[in-house]
Amino acid sequence: MRCEVVAIGTELLLGQITDTNSSWIGEQLALAGIDSLFQTKVGDNLDRIVDTLELALSRSDAVICCGGLGPTQDDLTRTALAAVMGVPLVADEEMEEHIIGLFSGRGRSMPANNLRQAELPEGASFIEQMPGTAPGLICPLQRPGAGATTRDLVIYAVPGVPWEMKEMMLATVVPDLQLRAGITSVIRSRTLRTWGESESGLAELLAGRIDHLDGTGNPTLAFLASGIEGLKVRITAKADTDVAAEALLAAEEAEVRGLLGPLVFGVDDDTMESVVLDLLRADGRTLAVAESLTGGMIGSRLCDVPGASDVFRGAVVSYASEVKFDVLGVDPGPVVTTDAAVAMAEGVRRMLGADIGIAATGVAGPDEQEGRPVGTVCLAVISSTGEDAEPVVESLEIHLPGGRRQIREFTVITLLGLLRRHLLS
Amino acid sequence: MRCEVVAIGTELLLGQITDTNSSWIGEQLALAGIDSLFQTKVGDNLDRIVDTLELALSRSDAVICCGGLGPTQDDLTRTALAAVMGVPLVADEEMEEHIIGLFSGRGRSMPANNLRQAELPEGASFIEQMPGTAPGLICPLQRPGAGATTRDLVIYAVPGVPWEMKEMMLATVVPDLQLRAGITSVIRSRTLRTWGESESGLAELLAGRIDHLDGTGNPTLAFLASGIEGLKVRITAKADTDVAAEALLAAEEAEVRGLLGPLVFGVDDDTMESVVLDLLRADGRTLAVAESLTGGMIGSRLCDVPGASDVFRGAVVSYASEVKFDVLGVDPGPVVTTDAAVAMAEGVRRMLGADIGIAATGVAGPDEQEGRPVGTVCLAVISSTGEDAEPVVESLEIHLPGGRRQIREFTVITLLGLLRRHLLS
Repeated sequence: MRCEVVAIGTELLLGQITDTNSSWIGEQLALAGIDSLFQTKVGDNLDRIVDTLELALSRSDAVICCGGLGPTQDDLTRTALAAVMGVPLVADEEMEEHIIGLFSGRGRSMPANNLRQAELPEGASFIEQMPGTAPGLICPLQRPGAGATTRDLVIYAVPGVPWEMKEMMLATVVPDLQLRAGITSVIRSRTLRTWGESESGLAELLAGRIDHLDGTGNPTLAFLASGIEGLKVRITAKADTDVAAEALLAAEEAEVRGLLGPLVFGVDDDTMESVVLDLLRADGRTLAVAESLTGGMIGSRLCDVPGASDVFRGAVVSYASEVKFDVLGVDPGPVVTTDAAVAMAEGVRRMLGADIGIAATGVAGPDEQEGRPVGTVCLAVISSTGEDAEPVVESLEIHLPGGRRQIREFTVITLLGLLRRHLLS
Repeated sequence: MRCEVVAIGTELLLGQITDTNSSWIGEQLALAGIDSLFQTKVGDNLDRIVDTLELALSRSDAVICCGGLGPTQDDLTRTALAAVMGVPLVADEEMEEHIIGLFSGRGRSMPANNLRQAELPEGASFIEQMPGTAPGLICPLQRPGAGATTRDLVIYAVPGVPWEMKEMMLATVVPDLQLRAGITSVIRSRTLRTWGESESGLAELLAGRIDHLDGTGNPTLAFLASGIEGLKVRITAKADTDVAAEALLAAEEAEVRGLLGPLVFGVDDDTMESVVLDLLRADGRTLAVAESLTGGMIGSRLCDVPGASDVFRGAVVSYASEVKFDVLGVDPGPVVTTDAAVAMAEGVRRMLGADIGIAATGVAGPDEQEGRPVGTVCLAVISSTGEDAEPVVESLEIHLPGGRRQIREFTVITLLGLLRRHLLS
């Protein structure tokens, strides 16, 4: 089974936005055991979209086209699909009502052209999931094959909005492709999330294991540096059944964990945030955050996790030094010090009534501060162990590479990583 | 002049790395006045690379292929180019010596296969710039044209390493393409950033103008929805000189602003954050933020802008209701109300000693809260006008679509948009 990806949108060709959808789709197809040999970007031009789809159909069994499903005149995917199928576009009344309902449910009036999204090529069907206002399409069609045979082909159309596209891909498109391909062998992968070693450091720790796996070719290991997400080690295994593939993954995970130890903080969709929130929840402890250079990013990342409210009391962003002194009770003086970080952590812990306080202060740039170079960051964790006992304090000064954004992001994961180790010890 | 982009590498199809090179090249071509109608990703497979190049040559005048110039057996671009040109690969002695020199100059021994990089198709030449160890190529070739004519075509090959590619593109490829195209005209673009209308709403407001421009084809307008970045309206103009293109842009910007009014909050690299920080700085006023569902995202976005510290005092993230009551002085009771938002804004303004306080409280989901549905958000802006005067208060309840992340992101830009209107009035 070969499946091409066609990303539609002049803005993609002009570089106004980068086509990350095709990459993500390519990855999902690879994991599902489906070959994707060509991926094409084409602009909002009917003839060229049709030509591109025809070419894809001539050399592949399926096509996923992404984008061009919006309500405006630029959105030509529906029209192109009807042309390729050789059928008219028809309006679907049920979908019209659904779209009207989406708008009225939000108390907004619906621009008339939104009803264009309820049209589909005759013989096509809507993808069941519809997380946004753009319906996805499944378009079966045929082309002549060798001799007197015909080739049964399919085009899927998904929106260009990534989260809408992803939901449709995972719930409908990939399973449908696998069914059509009669794929029985399965490929599964598992990603171990690490923090605390560089990519080359991880590669050295795992070099012997990778050499060993190169001999068998299954499972495989790959690295991926993901900034604020940490460094990922991906295990991929192929087997006849789900159970056998999962067993291979589990065995390999145990090997890798044996080599990496506490560097591994999570698996797959775990994030450093979700991991520390889970640890805190299990302990029945609450958290308060004092931020400076990160400006609220630590709190924001924690709140990305549904259910954070069980644990996360809140944060004080003391961006101005006077806020550190007046609100958090830091002693006047230099604020890029571990002492200041500890005072911030203790100040916010008391103020917000939390069991644990964490803090980050430092120099994100572009200019140095208090004579400390850009990238200097001081971190602290303070946890109370009861009314009268002395709190447990940990602090750390680090020196981070990169620009303003990277320094702030690495500060977030490093501070949360410090909290994780604190909670585990 | 039409120029396609072909990105070569199996890792691109598998989604192991995202092809950002094609986007960047597309943008440079657009700015240079060269059309790029198709961009294709193809894997490390000789036949498919050759097919892709032949197709590109059949419908365009030039091709830029990116990647596959390394020293390994997977690097097939040189071989594919020789096949397309119908000539053998020949070794270039001067380049061999250069590459040997590169390695010895760094005190490293050269793997023998690095000399493959000194080969080029007969009749091709090297791109003068060579920032890394991979030489780029210029490959002139011909194909039959209409009647007895021939078409003079060219393929450029540049490395996949972004900074190597960019240096070759800017110094050699783009100027060479413009020379071949006899381009004296320039294309310039400008992006108006808007917030407050949906994409289809903007399309309706601008429908008459777009119809008018469709008649002339220059300048053109395009929309782009960018989530937390707002909705963008891009104006693109073509003219004989920079000055004339800029004049077209300025005239069209005035037309569009006349139709959209205060919906336009900025131009090009402006963000809602940078715009409100600039307005506050111009007024000499400081800002404090009280956040709930956004968890720190508002502060974090403001601090993304270098120089935010002139204006931004800090934030209190009152995620737990008790923090709203105890720290910010909100009256105990429901917290998803405009009254609570106003109390939060006033509380944080006083606490952090700022001139203006803004606040957001609401329901990001997944569960409803206080009987209010997911997406209900209350916003407030409060600004003092002096010691004894009554502060000016604005508040707003909105209902946002989408999931947790989208609700939080739209909250950020909507609150900052409210602050912008407040500062302008």
